[in-house]
Amino acid sequence: MTFDYLIPTKILFGAGKLNQLAEEKLPGTKALIVISAGTSMRKHGYLQRLEKLLEQQGIHSVVYDKILPNPIKEHVMEGAALAKENSCDFVIGLGGGSSIDAAKSIAVMAVNPGDYWDYIGSGSGKGEPVENGALPIVAITTTAGTGTEADPWTVITNGDEKIGFGDPAFTFPVLSVVDPELMLSVPPQLTAFQGFDALFHSVEGYIANIATPMSDIYALESIRLIAEYLPTAVADGTNIEAREKVALANTLSGMVESTSCCISEHSLEHAMSGRHPELPHGAGLIMLSEAYLSHFADKIPEKYKAMAQAMGGTDFVEELVKLQEKCGVRELKMSDYGITENELEAIAENARDTMGFLFELDPVQITPAETVHILQAAYR
Amino acid sequence: MTFDYLIPTKILFGAGKLNQLAEEKLPGTKALIVISAGTSMRKHGYLQRLEKLLEQQGIHSVVYDKILPNPIKEHVMEGAALAKENSCDFVIGLGGGSSIDAAKSIAVMAVNPGDYWDYIGSGSGKGEPVENGALPIVAITTTAGTGTEADPWTVITNGDEKIGFGDPAFTFPVLSVVDPELMLSVPPQLTAFQGFDALFHSVEGYIANIATPMSDIYALESIRLIAEYLPTAVADGTNIEAREKVALANTLSGMVESTSCCISEHSLEHAMSGRHPELPHGAGLIMLSEAYLSHFADKIPEKYKAMAQAMGGTDFVEELVKLQEKCGVRELKMSDYGITENELEAIAENARDTMGFLFELDPVQITPAETVHILQAAYR
Repeated sequence: MTFDYLIPTKILFGAGKLNQLAEEKLPGTKALIVISAGTSMRKHGYLQRLEKLLEQQGIHSVVYDKILPNPIKEHVMEGAALAKENSCDFVIGLGGGSSIDAAKSIAVMAVNPGDYWDYIGSGSGKGEPVENGALPIVAITTTAGTGTEADPWTVITNGDEKIGFGDPAFTFPVLSVVDPELMLSVPPQLTAFQGFDALFHSVEGYIANIATPMSDIYALESIRLIAEYLPTAVADGTNIEAREKVALANTLSGMVESTSCCISEHSLEHAMSGRHPELPHGAGLIMLSEAYLSHFADKIPEKYKAMAQAMGGTDFVEELVKLQEKCGVRELKMSDYGITENELEAIAENARDTMGFLFELDPVQITPAETVHILQAAYR
Repeated sequence: MTFDYLIPTKILFGAGKLNQLAEEKLPGTKALIVISAGTSMRKHGYLQRLEKLLEQQGIHSVVYDKILPNPIKEHVMEGAALAKENSCDFVIGLGGGSSIDAAKSIAVMAVNPGDYWDYIGSGSGKGEPVENGALPIVAITTTAGTGTEADPWTVITNGDEKIGFGDPAFTFPVLSVVDPELMLSVPPQLTAFQGFDALFHSVEGYIANIATPMSDIYALESIRLIAEYLPTAVADGTNIEAREKVALANTLSGMVESTSCCISEHSLEHAMSGRHPELPHGAGLIMLSEAYLSHFADKIPEKYKAMAQAMGGTDFVEELVKLQEKCGVRELKMSDYGITENELEAIAENARDTMGFLFELDPVQITPAETVHILQAAYR
C-alpha cells in the first residue's frame, strides 16, 4: 500500500458559510466571476451577494455568464480573454459543476498561450505541458453533484469530445465554499441527477484499481450519506439537514476523485453526453449504472459487500436500484434523449478514444465487446 | 454543522516512499535538517540516506542534532540561528514527533525576530502575532505517534511549561513522508507509547465538543486500525503490514488534530511531562486514560458506543484496558516516573495555567476539583 495524498483546498462548509467570504483571505484584488448562462445565479440573488461580499474586502469583480450545462471550449477561451483584458488575479466559479469546471479551465488559459485543447492529454488534444500554472481558483458550489470543489479536475466539451483535465499542482481550488443554503432551490430531478453523480464518483473511486485507504474512507462515508439522505433531499428540497448531508457526501466524493479516480463508467457517460449535450451527466450515469456496476459484482465481492453495508443492505446493486426508485429516476431511458441502439458501438469507441485512460483503472479490464454489451444491457 | 477544513500537506505514504524525495519537488535549495540528540538517525542510516537524496536534487543541507524527547525552547532558538546563519530556505524534521515539532518551531523562528515564547499564546507566553510566517517545513516521520506530519501543531517545553503552538496558515508541513520501513527499528515499548498517543489524539478529537464530520471519519478509522494492528506492531516490530497500518492510523490522528482538537487529557499530560521530562508523553497519557476517559463515558454514550464498535467491542473503556494489556503497558505507574501524590493538585493547576484552552473543548466541562479527582483515580 503506497500512495501520494494531496487535497490542499480550504473548505468552508455549512449553512451560511458564504458570508464568511467577507473576512476570509482571498487570493487577489480583482476577480473574474464565472457563472452559467442560465438565470438562477441572479434570480436567487447569489451573484449579487457574492459581489457585495467581495466589495466588502475591496475586491473588484467582472462577470462571465455564458457557461453551458456541458461547458464548451469556446467559452473557456472567451472567459480567459475577459480575465486577461481585466487583469483579473483570481477566478471564482459560482454555480454547479459546469461553472466551477469552466472557472478552473479559464484560470489555466488566463495565463497560458495558445488553445485550451493544446493542453488536453487525450482525444485530439495535443498534450502540451502547461508552463504557467493557473490563476488561483475559488469555488462556490450551489449544487451537490460533481465534487469539483474538492478536486483538481475539470471536464470541457470540444465538438463531440468531452474530456477531463487538471493538475493537482495548480487546478485545485485554493478555497471552496459549500453552503447548503445555496442548494435549497435546486429542483427535485436535478437534485437526484447530481446526487447520483456524486454517488458514482464515490462508487467508481472505491472499486477503481488505484483506490487508496484514504479514498476508501471518503467513499464509504459518501455512499452512506447519499443512501440515507438523497431521497429526502429529492422529496423535500427545503430540508436543510438533508441538503447538508448530501452536500457533505458530494464534497467527500470530490475528495475521492482527488485520491482515487473515476473509471470507465464515466468515459462511457462522457461519450453519451458529448454526443447528446442535452443529456445531463448524472442522468446518463444513472442509465448506465445497473448494467455497468453489475458487471463487476462477482469479481470484487468484498468491496460490493462494504458498499451494500454502507447503504444499509446486503446486495449493492439491489440497493442501487432501490435508491433510484426512491429518488424517482428508475425510469430514465437513453432513447428519451435521442440515443439510438445503432449508436452504442460508436459511443463505446468514442469513450475509449477520448477517455480511454479510465478503462485502465477498472477493477478488472473490460474488452471493447464487453463494453458494447454493457451499453446494450443498459439501453432502453 | 459548520466547519472550516484545511489539510494542505502533501503526504507520501508507504514502504519505500522516502526514495521519492530524489524526484519530488522540494521547497528550496538549502535545507536545515533537524534530528534528535539520540543516535538512531545516524545508526540506522536514515540521515545519510536523506542527505544523499537531497544531493541528487542539488540541495545542500546542514544538520541540527540536539533535539530532546521533549524539545526545549533553547534548541528552537539555536536551530533557528543555525538556519539563518546558513541561509536555509526550508526546514526538514527527520525523526519522531519531537524532531518534527522542533523543525516547525525552528521554521517560525528562522524568519521572525525575538524569542519563541513571545509568540506563545498561553502560560507565560506573550501571544504576539507572527508577522513573517515560517520557512516551508518538510516532515519525515520515523515513528507513529504524534501525527504531527499531518497537522500544524508543535509542542515545546520552556521551564515547566509545555505548550502547543501553530498556525494553519504556515506551520503545516508542505510535504510529509510516512514510510513504515523507517519505523521497523522502533523498540516495542516506544511503539506502544507512540501508538497510544495516536489513539488518544483520535479519541480526544472524536469526543471533543468541536469535532466535525471530517474529524469523525478520520478518528474512527484511526481507532479501528490501532485496535487491530498495534498489538502486532508491538509484539513483532518487523511486521511491515502492522507498521504500515499503525502509521496510517497515526497520520489519520494528525488529520483529526487538524480538523478537531485534543482535549484536557493532553493538558494534564503536558503538565505531568513538563514537570517530569523523562516521562514519555504516550506513557503519561496511558496512565491517565482509564480514569480520564471513564469520566465522560455516561455523558456521551453514542460516541463511546461508536468508539467501542471501532475497536471490535461494546464497551469502550473495557476495550481500552484490553488494548493496554495486549500491548504490555497496563502496569505503567506515575510513581515510577517520580510523580508523587502530593503533586497532583499542582499538576492540575499547571494544566489549566499552560493549556487551559483545551479544557474548553471537553465534551462536558470538568471542574478543578474533578480534575484533581481524575488524577487521583489515575494515580498509582
